[in-house]
Amino acid sequence: MNINITLPDGTVKTYDKGTTGYDIAKSISEGLARNALAIMANGTITELSKPLKEDASLRILTWSDQEGKAAFWHSSAHLLAEALEALYPGIKLGIGPSIEQGFYYDIDFGEYSFSQEDFSRVEAKMLELAKANSVYEMRSISKQEAIHYFTEKGDPYKLELIDGLSDGSITFCTQGNFTDLCKGGHIPNTGLIKAVKLLNVAGAYWRGDVSRKQLTRIYAISFPKQKELEEYLHLLEEAKRRDHRVLGKELEIYLITPAIGGGLPVWLPKGTIIRRKLEEFIKAELLKRGYTEVITPHVGNLNLYRTSGHYPYYADSQFAPITVEDEEYLLKPMNCPHHHQIYLSKPRSYKDLPLRFAEFGTVYRYEQSGELSGLSRVRGFTQDDAHIYCRHDQLKAELINAIELTQLVFKTFDMPVRTRLSFRDPATPEKYAGSVDMWDQAEREILEVAQSMGLDYFIGLGEAAFYGPKFDFIVNDALGRKWQLGTVQVDYVMTERFNLEYMGSDNQKHRPVIIHRAPFGSMERFISILIEHYAGHFPVWLAPEQVTVLPISTKYDDYTRSVYQSLQSAGLRATMDLREEKIGRKIRDAEVAKTPYMLVIGEKEMSEGSVSVRRQAKGDEGTMPLDQFKEKILKEINALK
Amino acid sequence: MNINITLPDGTVKTYDKGTTGYDIAKSISEGLARNALAIMANGTITELSKPLKEDASLRILTWSDQEGKAAFWHSSAHLLAEALEALYPGIKLGIGPSIEQGFYYDIDFGEYSFSQEDFSRVEAKMLELAKANSVYEMRSISKQEAIHYFTEKGDPYKLELIDGLSDGSITFCTQGNFTDLCKGGHIPNTGLIKAVKLLNVAGAYWRGDVSRKQLTRIYAISFPKQKELEEYLHLLEEAKRRDHRVLGKELEIYLITPAIGGGLPVWLPKGTIIRRKLEEFIKAELLKRGYTEVITPHVGNLNLYRTSGHYPYYADSQFAPITVEDEEYLLKPMNCPHHHQIYLSKPRSYKDLPLRFAEFGTVYRYEQSGELSGLSRVRGFTQDDAHIYCRHDQLKAELINAIELTQLVFKTFDMPVRTRLSFRDPATPEKYAGSVDMWDQAEREILEVAQSMGLDYFIGLGEAAFYGPKFDFIVNDALGRKWQLGTVQVDYVMTERFNLEYMGSDNQKHRPVIIHRAPFGSMERFISILIEHYAGHFPVWLAPEQVTVLPISTKYDDYTRSVYQSLQSAGLRATMDLREEKIGRKIRDAEVAKTPYMLVIGEKEMSEGSVSVRRQAKGDEGTMPLDQFKEKILKEINALK
Repeated sequence: MNINITLPDGTVKTYDKGTTGYDIAKSISEGLARNALAIMANGTITELSKPLKEDASLRILTWSDQEGKAAFWHSSAHLLAEALEALYPGIKLGIGPSIEQGFYYDIDFGEYSFSQEDFSRVEAKMLELAKANSVYEMRSISKQEAIHYFTEKGDPYKLELIDGLSDGSITFCTQGNFTDLCKGGHIPNTGLIKAVKLLNVAGAYWRGDVSRKQLTRIYAISFPKQKELEEYLHLLEEAKRRDHRVLGKELEIYLITPAIGGGLPVWLPKGTIIRRKLEEFIKAELLKRGYTEVITPHVGNLNLYRTSGHYPYYADSQFAPITVEDEEYLLKPMNCPHHHQIYLSKPRSYKDLPLRFAEFGTVYRYEQSGELSGLSRVRGFTQDDAHIYCRHDQLKAELINAIELTQLVFKTFDMPVRTRLSFRDPATPEKYAGSVDMWDQAEREILEVAQSMGLDYFIGLGEAAFYGPKFDFIVNDALGRKWQLGTVQVDYVMTERFNLEYMGSDNQKHRPVIIHRAPFGSMERFISILIEHYAGHFPVWLAPEQVTVLPISTKYDDYTRSVYQSLQSAGLRATMDLREEKIGRKIRDAEVAKTPYMLVIGEKEMSEGSVSVRRQAKGDEGTMPLDQFKEKILKEINALK
Repeated sequence: MNINITLPDGTVKTYDKGTTGYDIAKSISEGLARNALAIMANGTITELSKPLKEDASLRILTWSDQEGKAAFWHSSAHLLAEALEALYPGIKLGIGPSIEQGFYYDIDFGEYSFSQEDFSRVEAKMLELAKANSVYEMRSISKQEAIHYFTEKGDPYKLELIDGLSDGSITFCTQGNFTDLCKGGHIPNTGLIKAVKLLNVAGAYWRGDVSRKQLTRIYAISFPKQKELEEYLHLLEEAKRRDHRVLGKELEIYLITPAIGGGLPVWLPKGTIIRRKLEEFIKAELLKRGYTEVITPHVGNLNLYRTSGHYPYYADSQFAPITVEDEEYLLKPMNCPHHHQIYLSKPRSYKDLPLRFAEFGTVYRYEQSGELSGLSRVRGFTQDDAHIYCRHDQLKAELINAIELTQLVFKTFDMPVRTRLSFRDPATPEKYAGSVDMWDQAEREILEVAQSMGLDYFIGLGEAAFYGPKFDFIVNDALGRKWQLGTVQVDYVMTERFNLEYMGSDNQKHRPVIIHRAPFGSMERFISILIEHYAGHFPVWLAPEQVTVLPISTKYDDYTRSVYQSLQSAGLRATMDLREEKIGRKIRDAEVAKTPYMLVIGEKEMSEGSVSVRRQAKGDEGTMPLDQFKEKILKEINALK
């Protein structure tokens, strides 16, 4: 008997029934077999050793795949549990899944105490057990046997989990001396785990229920090479050093205070400069690309959101309505319905289209206070929003225009980008508004645009908005972390709901198509990422303070003032440090403030009319005439932008 | 027996007891006596003929005084009532006061119908009666006699008014055949009234109570010269032609739609350009003057406004609070408390002051829907706000800096300005927060600044904010209408309430002083006035479309496009009109759109590389090379700004 295996590139190969993932990997290449960790068969992560009994679409998972890492970390969670049981006999186990970065296990330590100080002991035990090269062995087991096993062992949490499962669906996994209730998806053996690190310990309620017992959650991570752990730890430390919540305070970029409200950032003078510079950058591009700017109020009649369908369905993520006389108003959670009213404010003809309304629109959405975090998760944020109203025959050109603008943004900030084509999930049609025909057409056009532009894209099923499919942009920052930033969305639905029309050349009424787009997405979130991307060392054109003038003694104050004035007049954001401090201290303070250029002024500079240039984080760049420095910095500003 | 009369310039003159205002006017000059209409004696408008029995401070009122006009119009209301009684015997009379521009009388017409068509008949009757030169004669009357008179006459409204008066305080005024219940303050005789105009007729509830009967309110105005009436009517017509609600729609500046909400203006693309240009103009000035820009959220914890004292005392003019989790938030009615939080975000030293935080801050205040009007009375508006935190020794310099900026604004828009020093009303100390010493000092400093700057100022008692005295600026627009625009306020109170401090050079904590200031005041209101001031003909630097290129036939489309591109590249806001329309029509449409420059393109222009220039409302300015035109318009833009 044969089975047909469909590989990711679409080729179908025939194998004997009972062939394993490992065999298939080997049939493709020895290298792949060597690196294989598990397989993805019909969407489920499965062991390499499992005999395949049916036709399947199959991917061989390696460490380069997020799913390969998931198998690795899930297996490592078993190893952590084995080590903990060895060191703390009698502990009770909750669950131990892989997460985006690593894995955790929830443990009831009973009478034992457990803290960070115990981490190294656990890590050592894990590595010791790993060296045994124990195979992860899966077997099916009856519910009765499963109950018997964990009753004997005395583990109430596993018993509760088994209680929720049906007979015939229960599997156990054993490696070495440790057996766990487990659905599967492991790497071949513990020997592949070469490096482990316990990261954190925290309380976690059993099954997330605050009325249940609080267990101890141990977060950890593991790697197939020691070097990769080291790189990861370096990255962690670097991320911590760059944390925008820390730098945002140090560099006086923003303020969040309970006096005003959680999640409601205040832009301090320096942060406001960064925001305005980004806005100016985008506005200059919008002007070139035929957009017009509009300004709309921050509240709107609740009926707008009833019409759009955002209320009451998304009421949980909105502020409560405000009653004014007999009407209800909402703090606007989005700008779209306001822009639609502008479209509706006069009759539109096919000759007027496309219309491109842009607004730096501040919107307000409710997030639970526990979810709020710096500038990344807020209750009020400003979108660099725009809505393009176009004819169907203009859609592709407008999508390309919008995507090119987005690409320009990420290129400017030196962030590599992949594009997700966010399509609907065909399995849940009830989640989407509009006809299937409309969706099919929109998705087809998005795909065509992605292909014609040669985008580095992948398809994300179920990632669409309820009103249409979209392009989402996944960028890498300087640490290689991924962020979803910017969006270009196609919308055939709101034109119906808001009854948007134009008079065609055929003298008939037609519906336009709407493109929603925001290259930065949210200014707040984008700037939080920029702070971390640059570690606060903004390019000169963005830096709140571009240059500071540092006299080595009060003798040079007058010349310092004249240099400062000259820089200011050239439109540079300059400061000077006239404190009676040693020059070393002044330089150190300017380094901490991350001011890109420091101009040191002494006898030589004063007599020559020159400045001694220091570049932040780079050091001395020599002495040069003031005019030459101005030329240099202005050139840098104009080039970077 | 003598009495002492204090004249406006402070001189005290002695007169016989029983001397009249007319005698005093005559003793000053014959001309003054000829022009005198009434007197202001100890703050009350009184007849010229009334014998003065006590010492008094006294002003002779003429048509040049607002109070002189009030006496004139109040007297004219009597004349209107006399005319109406003559034409409609048996009507019942309500009240008939003077108002800012003219006067009204509330009439119960009973069975008579009355409409605009009857206006000229009433006007003619008024002039006929005026010619009788009837003297306005005042006499005291007992309550009993007063009741008897109006019972006989059968006027229930007057009887109700008398019912509320105490015996001994009741006076009647008679001119010709008409007697009214009246406190006094008339011109000598009806003969002075040379021109009358009924303006409008509307319903008005008796005593403003919707449960009482609706009377007919007749609005009218009168003048001592026919020519002044003509000028007034011309002004009315001009104001109507310039109405920003009409021009705002025609020129596509803003949109107010019930779909979003009353009083919540949306800035359309052209209006947004005007707003941004004004903002850029101010921002450039702020940069020069050492301000830093900040951005704060549009909601804030309600406690901020409890602390400031604006809640619950001003709750009637605020939107209702929004509950979020356990906290209440308010759509911010002002930016101050948010800026105070920025001040509080780090320790401040005497060396850090002054701090000047500027924000184009959009605030939301509740106004009854009936009060809303275009951009002048709205529920959401953007202040060009700033708060200056300074030491006491810096206050005067900072006030001068803020006032100079305000003066620059009004000069730029060619609006003459007077300054009101808005002080507290010493009679109602309970209306003001803070100590009397603080107020005395602040008012003294304001006065000193006004004098040292040579401001054209007057003092407005009772016009202060509850937290401090202020400078208010009263400007004249192109029609000579007065608007209160811009404010510079001193505040010693909020520093206490928000506990703002700085460390002095003495190592002690001190309170700063706050200056609140906004040169435009509200962008919405300012732009509504600018629209009317310019009748939509904005100066070129502000005009949403600066120049439009009009080919006389499609033959010149290519050259038109190249001219258009060249203008765009020069940073000009250009359009072109490529419709297949006659050139006359294209010019007419550009005139309607109020585009400052029209460039007509024909054979000659194309062959020469020139443009034929038309200036809006001025006409042909000749043919010139394109480069010369660009130079000309750019020069105009830079000069006007």
